[in-house]
Amino acid sequence: MQSVKPILSAVLLALGVTAISTTAVHAKAIETQRHNIELEVVTEGLEYPWGMDFLPDGSVLITEKTGAVVHYHFDKNEKHTLSGVPEVVYAGQGGLLDIVVDPNFAENQWVYLSYAEADPAGGDGQSTAVTRARLDGHKLVDQELIFRVAPKFNSRFHFGSRLVFSPEGHLFITTGDRYHHMDDAQTLDNHDGKIVRIWPDGSVPEDNPFVDQAGAMPEIWSYGHRNVQGAAIHPLTGKLWAAEHGPKGGDEINIAEAANNYGWPVATFGIDYDDSIISDKTYVEGTVLPHYYWVPSIAISNMIFYTGDAFPEWKNDLFVAALRGSQVARLDLDGDRVMHEETLLQDDTKARLRDIAQGPDGFIYLLSDDKNGALLRIKPAE
Amino acid sequence: MQSVKPILSAVLLALGVTAISTTAVHAKAIETQRHNIELEVVTEGLEYPWGMDFLPDGSVLITEKTGAVVHYHFDKNEKHTLSGVPEVVYAGQGGLLDIVVDPNFAENQWVYLSYAEADPAGGDGQSTAVTRARLDGHKLVDQELIFRVAPKFNSRFHFGSRLVFSPEGHLFITTGDRYHHMDDAQTLDNHDGKIVRIWPDGSVPEDNPFVDQAGAMPEIWSYGHRNVQGAAIHPLTGKLWAAEHGPKGGDEINIAEAANNYGWPVATFGIDYDDSIISDKTYVEGTVLPHYYWVPSIAISNMIFYTGDAFPEWKNDLFVAALRGSQVARLDLDGDRVMHEETLLQDDTKARLRDIAQGPDGFIYLLSDDKNGALLRIKPAE
Ligand SMILES: [Ca+2]
Ligand SMILES: [Ca+2]
Repeated sequence: MQSVKPILSAVLLALGVTAISTTAVHAKAIETQRHNIELEVVTEGLEYPWGMDFLPDGSVLITEKTGAVVHYHFDKNEKHTLSGVPEVVYAGQGGLLDIVVDPNFAENQWVYLSYAEADPAGGDGQSTAVTRARLDGHKLVDQELIFRVAPKFNSRFHFGSRLVFSPEGHLFITTGDRYHHMDDAQTLDNHDGKIVRIWPDGSVPEDNPFVDQAGAMPEIWSYGHRNVQGAAIHPLTGKLWAAEHGPKGGDEINIAEAANNYGWPVATFGIDYDDSIISDKTYVEGTVLPHYYWVPSIAISNMIFYTGDAFPEWKNDLFVAALRGSQVARLDLDGDRVMHEETLLQDDTKARLRDIAQGPDGFIYLLSDDKNGALLRIKPAE
Repeated sequence: MQSVKPILSAVLLALGVTAISTTAVHAKAIETQRHNIELEVVTEGLEYPWGMDFLPDGSVLITEKTGAVVHYHFDKNEKHTLSGVPEVVYAGQGGLLDIVVDPNFAENQWVYLSYAEADPAGGDGQSTAVTRARLDGHKLVDQELIFRVAPKFNSRFHFGSRLVFSPEGHLFITTGDRYHHMDDAQTLDNHDGKIVRIWPDGSVPEDNPFVDQAGAMPEIWSYGHRNVQGAAIHPLTGKLWAAEHGPKGGDEINIAEAANNYGWPVATFGIDYDDSIISDKTYVEGTVLPHYYWVPSIAISNMIFYTGDAFPEWKNDLFVAALRGSQVARLDLDGDRVMHEETLLQDDTKARLRDIAQGPDGFIYLLSDDKNGALLRIKPAE
């Protein structure tokens, strides 16, 4: 196990959060509206962790933005760093970003990585790319680049990069507008500010909405996005939901349907962080209003629909992690409809929460985006 | 004009809220997410005001729970107390409650009053009743009792009593479970915990949902309510929306449709104020989940859909007044769907807000429920 940095530990311990240890020290119970929970530190020493996914054996793969994939085994409390990770551009918001395990991993051993990729032609640009590779022990082998955002240009911002499989086996990849190309989100001749849908081998589904449109990138599923860093499939409808970092006052949840235009930057509830007006319109004909939005922004990252048994009252609710206020928003859903929002954990960590996942144990896992980042776990209070 | 009590004035002035006066002292502008507003005191000296409605000439009728109807003329800043108000039982939550002006007032001069009525047979019970009368100068004449909740029994709580006309000219009357008869909300042989629908003359619409059901009260429109004190018609769908005081943690907005059971007390998100569990179920088959709910409760009172021109960015949004936290919740709606909740005025008054109305000027009016209650007004900041 890597060394535990004392600062985060001290902060978390002061707040009643305990690291797992062989001595049975239990975390303080946190009362929430439907369940009493405990928040505990599973492991620390992760360098700016960004994404995670579980393997069939119950272990977890965690990306570090600086460029490594850590394989963490709960039972032995051991971390291994994988070899064979593609080279990434670690700068600004770029680096090694999300990871997802193939739904048929037991048969094919594929894992998928998204990251900021340098220009292979040698230019100074970067863009989001996705590579898959087979996990062989602690090695990634048989690498295949399956998607690359076009165009490449130099910007350290808004890489999107969340990865999620559809129930039919498509891979959804979210992108961002790279900040300097925000208008590109409205045109179909590029991949910026889009959600794209491909098959896991990189081929384009023939029923993608723009495959027959001249000049349109065939991978595009939906457009008019700013920086989509959350994605999850609704467990009852099978539809893709996406979480988008807005400007100041415009974080959005969208139900991302084929061919829809989600408005950025012509329609938004937010303003730029320097207080300049991006658009005075919250709605423009032909675009789709957000399904739910936050003003002020909480800087939403990833999200999950909870489907486990550990928290029965949370079944099918949406949990949205946030970088600001170290909070998780629980949206109590009736089908698609938001009936209520509860803010969880706001006073319980000081962490920027970068990823959220449901473990095979039905507990909820979080990554804190920090130089000494942690894997955290929400479980029922004892 | 009645004497202005200095205490409320001092509180409001300290918070930048000014009473209207001939000297042009302007209130501090309050920044909200979509509009900059001012909150001002139009008039004070109202004794526990509960309901209000505007007349075609722009003046307003305001009920005082203690038993009077005040007719306030904005232009002359004059109050007149009407004669001919029915006798009410002023005790606990009972008294003179809501008032609504007939949509055809110019032709028929009818106004409708809801109130806690004593048992005309001389028993010690009370229940909500509705009387209409014609306004003749400062007199109410030609009184007709058009509805009376059955059964009468002795309880000072949960009278419901909000009045609203449907687009087709029905009168909706909301009731409460009277606290001591909460199970009555689930059966149709009484009017407790219901929304009822009648014609303005008290007759029962022949298409009411339970008119042909033996043993059911024919006035019933929907049931399973706790204490409905807010009602408004959605401007785009024409449907009735209702705001219900829940127990601790269960304030609800419901779209109140014919024959629906809204669950109280078998299903609720709340618990009793003494922390006892009313139901461990938030949902029971055959009942309808709330459209939106608040945990913790903010003690919602009345609500409006905003349809005026003074605040264009608020068009068709739902504004819900609350007794707790002196707040107004703005629900940003896309059709029926809640996309966002904003809390308005929370730090700007210490008032329990009992009613909310849109004036003919497009400004938003509020009543503060206090011994020295006030009529407040939200208008665009200058
Ligand atoms: Ca949008
Ligand atoms: Ca209910």
